[in-house]
Amino acid sequence: MHIHFLGTGAGLPSKDRNVTSIVLDLLQERNGLWMFDCGEATQHQILHTSIKPRKIEKIFITHLHGDHIFGLPGLLSSRSFQGGEEPVTIYGPTGIKQFIETALTVSQAKLSYPIMIEELKEGIIFEDDQFSVSVKKLDHAIDCFGFRIDEKDSQGPLLVEKLKEDGITPGPIYRQFKTKETVQLPNGNKVHSKDYIGEPKKGKSVAILGDTRTKEEYVSFVENVELLIHEATFNKEQVQLAYDYFHSTTAQAAKIAQKANVKKLILTHISSRFQLDEIDQLLLEAKQYFEETVIAHDFYSTSIK
Amino acid sequence: MHIHFLGTGAGLPSKDRNVTSIVLDLLQERNGLWMFDCGEATQHQILHTSIKPRKIEKIFITHLHGDHIFGLPGLLSSRSFQGGEEPVTIYGPTGIKQFIETALTVSQAKLSYPIMIEELKEGIIFEDDQFSVSVKKLDHAIDCFGFRIDEKDSQGPLLVEKLKEDGITPGPIYRQFKTKETVQLPNGNKVHSKDYIGEPKKGKSVAILGDTRTKEEYVSFVENVELLIHEATFNKEQVQLAYDYFHSTTAQAAKIAQKANVKKLILTHISSRFQLDEIDQLLLEAKQYFEETVIAHDFYSTSIK
Ligand SMILES: [Zn+2]
Ligand SMILES: [Zn+2]
Repeated sequence: MHIHFLGTGAGLPSKDRNVTSIVLDLLQERNGLWMFDCGEATQHQILHTSIKPRKIEKIFITHLHGDHIFGLPGLLSSRSFQGGEEPVTIYGPTGIKQFIETALTVSQAKLSYPIMIEELKEGIIFEDDQFSVSVKKLDHAIDCFGFRIDEKDSQGPLLVEKLKEDGITPGPIYRQFKTKETVQLPNGNKVHSKDYIGEPKKGKSVAILGDTRTKEEYVSFVENVELLIHEATFNKEQVQLAYDYFHSTTAQAAKIAQKANVKKLILTHISSRFQLDEIDQLLLEAKQYFEETVIAHDFYSTSIK
Repeated sequence: MHIHFLGTGAGLPSKDRNVTSIVLDLLQERNGLWMFDCGEATQHQILHTSIKPRKIEKIFITHLHGDHIFGLPGLLSSRSFQGGEEPVTIYGPTGIKQFIETALTVSQAKLSYPIMIEELKEGIIFEDDQFSVSVKKLDHAIDCFGFRIDEKDSQGPLLVEKLKEDGITPGPIYRQFKTKETVQLPNGNKVHSKDYIGEPKKGKSVAILGDTRTKEEYVSFVENVELLIHEATFNKEQVQLAYDYFHSTTAQAAKIAQKANVKKLILTHISSRFQLDEIDQLLLEAKQYFEETVIAHDFYSTSIK
């Protein structure tokens, strides 16, 4: 599980930071990429990475401000141009369907793959045997959502040494230990599978919040995740500005991370008002409350542990 | 009068060429910029130029394919963010209004300036005492238009030496020679203004065609322009491909330039199939028919003479 930041700026693109897009790389887990937000020129940013648009399986949109959605029509069209065939599901606030359908209709884009568009409400919006995605409404000037992605625990490894010790020799019977509760041995004895399966591998969790004012109730939503991605449009002092413009400060984001006992915090949605040399200061402000903090920059990428 | 190429690629962005956008710089003539097409990331390209979005007075859209319009919502929103106040008029094929209004509505962009959107038909779509713009329908897979911009001839200079020779001394009376047909002198005599005005300055003309198959009838539409901007998506050999995909070859574009007796031809909408070292070959193909040809690249800029 890896995360790639394609755009880490706020509001409008600058030479240093593009507008928002984040890719959760689940290639190892499910041969797919999940994108979160798609600001204008996200497809252009992708040209400078090894990301393959045809591997995008799902796109989650936090809110409909232009800096989070204006790259969608181009990304979807180019994915088709490049011969993408696998379906894509897009989740976003009410209005996302009208936006996408209008753009694709007027431009007469005939996509080479099916798209499904699901408009968001709070709760679990996706679940299969590997992952679940839950959604929480945030506090922004426009309907805006946070996503929590929980990987399910996966079965532990087969304890081959123990099987051999107990005289159960390798063969097709080993497969039964993975799928059945009890296994009948060739000698007629029955054994419990769980006695021959190691500790389950704990699934990882990631929370990605859209633009928002800070709110105490986010603590329980993001509790114990390996990675929290939170906006930090303003510095520690700009509490009133953050409130007025429905955004958060560095310190507010870090306090949520601390209270929620997350493993790592990545701050993004950084305003172009901050010069490059002020970024260190922003980081210090956050670290005062939560040490394991990083400030993302475009093309920053890390694996989730 | 200058022209700036912000995007010169075909279909989808590459590392070398962005999708289409061209700016006709009329800052000297009318303190304004006229944009032709606005592919995704046009506002990003602008960041690398001295172009000021608030100076954009008109945007002309040749057709609604995504590579020509997906940058519009972002450009309009950012122009507002940056405090643009002057109105913008957008001209484009039927559907452009729905596209822009949907994007601005769902993203809740409240522009700081008025926009007018006019859907195109053939004929003269704009005229004032300086310029006229005429429109011709082209032959593309989707409704597509070409624009011809004609600057009107402007009044010649006052012939001050001749005025003095005839005993008409400098003073407020000189202004009357610019606005009245006859001027009454202090001694009561009447003279014709035209006898004291030099040769009029000839206006310049530019033609910008959208994506199109070649057609003989374009010759009269672009006749005698100082600058013709024409697509060249395919090379000289690819006549059948050009026809099938509703595009032109290098040679076809150059033949139009030759027959229409234009002063200069700039080719754009260059496919990313062509490697950098093949561009010279494309240029040679065009020059075989029309010597004064240039192949545009992103950020290519020239003045129109
Ligand atoms: Zn934002
Ligand atoms: Zn095109």
